[in-house]
Amino acid sequence: MTYDPSNIFGKILRGEIPAHKVYEDETALVMMDIFPQSRGHTLVIPKAPSRNLFDADPAVLAAVIPLVQKVANAVKSVTHADGIRLAQFNEAPAGQSVFHLHFHIIPAYEGIPLAAHGGGKADDAELSALARDIAAQL
Amino acid sequence: MTYDPSNIFGKILRGEIPAHKVYEDETALVMMDIFPQSRGHTLVIPKAPSRNLFDADPAVLAAVIPLVQKVANAVKSVTHADGIRLAQFNEAPAGQSVFHLHFHIIPAYEGIPLAAHGGGKADDAELSALARDIAAQL
Repeated sequence: MTYDPSNIFGKILRGEIPAHKVYEDETALVMMDIFPQSRGHTLVIPKAPSRNLFDADPAVLAAVIPLVQKVANAVKSVTHADGIRLAQFNEAPAGQSVFHLHFHIIPAYEGIPLAAHGGGKADDAELSALARDIAAQL
Repeated sequence: MTYDPSNIFGKILRGEIPAHKVYEDETALVMMDIFPQSRGHTLVIPKAPSRNLFDADPAVLAAVIPLVQKVANAVKSVTHADGIRLAQFNEAPAGQSVFHLHFHIIPAYEGIPLAAHGGGKADDAELSALARDIAAQL
């Protein structure tokens, strides 16, 4: 299994297609998931090319995980979620649909089951507002 | 929300109760989940006390994530899983049941849905064999 740069996150990282960006530095891009499993579902995407966890550079993982933590705290603060699920899927049978390493930060709300991933596209105005509010907490 | 050292992983880390240990160093303990969601479900538990991702020391996260990657690769190699889910739950509404930070490494097998967490206790002999085989790959 090798990295194919034509994946959609590769295109977003190269600026070829737009995204609801929350934050960006030399290591990673943070953006809203447009098919959210719950309100505030956010993605942290390391910029270094790797298909998933199996082929990632350990130094990249070590550099990005503190950002994942910061984003989780920011998402919780903005959404007032009751909890946060961190998830990262490796290969299609495990739920991976875009083959560029990424971390899901998924708010959990008491009594509200998570939607299926890819179930429905969120409203762009709501995603923009969330991206701005989460960015303000970072 | 604060850290309560009487949680079951705290007891395992202090050697007060047994576990199917895979690996241990100064930073983390790796062990089999006794209520696996699939065959080979493994946990990576940082030794530093924190309730979950929200209150973790970023330096601990950076130190432990390369081990999480190594364990994921070892679990895939031993189980011949078709994929691996990495999951980490923060607070009960997000699925957290033990309030000491831990990472789930959950094999995915094509065509076999994941069991509910805590659904049933696995066979001790099978867990021991898995722990030994995964340790041999680290």
